[in-house]
Formats: sequence, structure tokens, C-alpha cells
Amino acid sequence: MRRFIIVGHKASTTADFKLDDIAGGAGRLDVLLRCVNSAFFLSHNIRTDTEVYLVLLGPGDPPKTLRFVGSELRYLNPDERSTAALVRNALMRKAKLEVRSSPGIYVSSMSFTDVLDRFKEGCQIVFLKEDGVPHRNFQYDDDVVFVLSDHHDLTPEEEGELRARTGSVISLGPLSYHADHCITIVNNELDIRVRLGTDRPS
Amino acid sequence: MRRFIIVGHKASTTADFKLDDIAGGAGRLDVLLRCVNSAFFLSHNIRTDTEVYLVLLGPGDPPKTLRFVGSELRYLNPDERSTAALVRNALMRKAKLEVRSSPGIYVSSMSFTDVLDRFKEGCQIVFLKEDGVPHRNFQYDDDVVFVLSDHHDLTPEEEGELRARTGSVISLGPLSYHADHCITIVNNELDIRVRLGTDRPS
Repeated sequence: MRRFIIVGHKASTTADFKLDDIAGGAGRLDVLLRCVNSAFFLSHNIRTDTEVYLVLLGPGDPPKTLRFVGSELRYLNPDERSTAALVRNALMRKAKLEVRSSPGIYVSSMSFTDVLDRFKEGCQIVFLKEDGVPHRNFQYDDDVVFVLSDHHDLTPEEEGELRARTGSVISLGPLSYHADHCITIVNNELDIRVRLGTDRPS
Repeated sequence: MRRFIIVGHKASTTADFKLDDIAGGAGRLDVLLRCVNSAFFLSHNIRTDTEVYLVLLGPGDPPKTLRFVGSELRYLNPDERSTAALVRNALMRKAKLEVRSSPGIYVSSMSFTDVLDRFKEGCQIVFLKEDGVPHRNFQYDDDVVFVLSDHHDLTPEEEGELRARTGSVISLGPLSYHADHCITIVNNELDIRVRLGTDRPS
């Protein structure tokens, strides 16, 4: 299973944003929507071995976490606007514990730390960051959790929580990429390894 | 210079679409907008060594070609809606020959073949297709033109025009990817090679 946790520091935690303004009033929700696209979409198919956690920390009612489960997803389309509508529907639910808002989409008031704590034992956690070690030489487990930030870095507190749980800090190339592009690159790397039957060099 | 040509078979060639309906009434323009994002955006930066050609063949007034020039671009943001607005502005211009509609964006009535003919000599043309040879073993030139299709394959006629100009058919992995994801993967591969100072293995 591949899992991606993306932290949206300004992303709205209530449903009172307009679908015409997802890059503005919704707190750069567009960044997170593109991450959902990159995580799940293949040409005419969806990756069923993938989960995405969007940790929303913006105004309204933080924290909120939306969990997308590839094997259960329906009604997900590649464009930003339609995924924003699914997110808005999820944020209309007021549950503290996780509830399903639509097939394959769950919402809760989990914090970033709560989400990390779901993967305490036996699960490889990878922090994607520009100053990490090159990923093509890194040995990935079959069950792997990638952690990314939105258009801002993780806060020192968030990074501290993450580094307390993993020493795996991985870089995807010599340049600094958008979070959704990182997910695409990781998925491609893992796809190639699956084909080659190896967990390391590609 | 990296160049990407993407064919949008149903994409609107007039400006009479709504920004709320770019995945519907605009003929899956959303696919092409994400390609623009993948081609140009780095974290807090734009790739100035890149050009994108969107060849629009949908209803209204086909063909139309929009050329995006990285070194001149302004007002480009990562989200689909704002890029759709730039495309719509360009489609309001009625020129047959290429004219500038906004900084770094040019519109003309060039066809797919017209665009290919701009790269007749000395420029490597690469056809990205699932059944090609694996790209990590392929030798790329510094000047390279990648050709991709939208959510549909190239037509037999388009593929014939392309194959008459190149024998380089390249696959990016064992699965079939969206066009914008292909561009992200290619950009990452070329970034890594630039860092390593090689034109081939990465």
C-alpha cells in the first residue's frame, strides 16, 4: 500500500468556500486537489493500492483530515473543481471521529500527529524534502507512507514530530517540486520497481 | 530547450466556454491546463527553458495552437481555472498567423502538422507512448520535443504524421499515465541528467 500525507497549512476546514475560488478563499486548496489527482489517476483507471490523507489546518474548524481510499473511491474526476466539490461535501460533516462523506472519502478532526500515530509500527515513513538523499538509491518497503507539505514547508514543530518517527528523508531531484509533482514522480518510481521486481535501484 | 506538444482533440477553439465547465463544455480543456502546469511549475519558480504547444482541435474554429514560452510567461498560476482564463483570452484573438495574447502566450491557427514542421531539422522529436522503449535508457538531446495526446490516443493520421518525422517512441513506465503526469516524469528525468552531467543513464 502506498500512502501520501499532505499538510495544507491554510486550507479551509469548513465548507464555506466557493468552487470558483479554491486557489484563493479556500486557502490554496488547489494544491491539495492536485495531490489527490496525482496519487490516484492512471489513464482510464484509479490506483486501488493507494490512500491519501489531506490534513487541513486553515481557518474555520481546524484540524480536519480527509482520507481518500483508492479501493473504494467513486465519483472522483481528475479536474480540480469536481474534487473540490467532494472536499466541500466532506467538510459539511461535523464528526470528530471519522465518518464517510462519499464512497472512498472519510473526514475526521484528526491532527497531523494523530495521522502519523496511525503508522507507528512496521510501516515505513518517508519525509520528502529537497535536502534528503536521492530517492533512486533508496530502499522502499511495500507499505510506505510519504509525507509532504503544501506550498509552504512543514513548521518546525511538524517537522520535529515527523523526524521523531523516521530518519528517512528523501529528495526526488536537484530542483524543488510542487507536492503533486512529487507524488507523480514517486508513483512512477515505484511502478518501475514493481515491474523490475526490485525494491531499490531502478 | 524542452518542448511539449499536446493535442487536445475535443478542446474548444473558441472562447465561448465557461470557466466553471472546463472539464465539460470546453472539451476536456482541463487535461491541457494540467499539462501547462506540469511543464512550467517548480516550487516558487517557472521553468524558463521550456515551451508548450497546445494544439486545439475541438469545435468552433479548429485548428488553434497556443504556444506558451517559459522565458516570457507572466500571470501564470498553477490552478486550472486561472490558466483557463488565459486560454480563453487567447482564443478571443482571431489571427491566423501567430499573435501574442498575453506575456508568453501566443495563438495561431497552426495545425498539428504545422507545429511539427517547425522542428524539421536538427531537433529531436520524441513520441511518448505506452508501447515505446523505456525512457531511462534513452539518449535525449539538449533540444528535444515531446509529443503527447490528451485523454484519447492520437488518430491514425496524426500518428502517421508523427512517425514520418521520428522513430523515437518512448515509454515512461509499465502503466498508462495522464499526459500531465508524463510531462512531470520527463522533466524530473531530464533534471536528474542535467545534475549528473549525462545524456543517458540516470
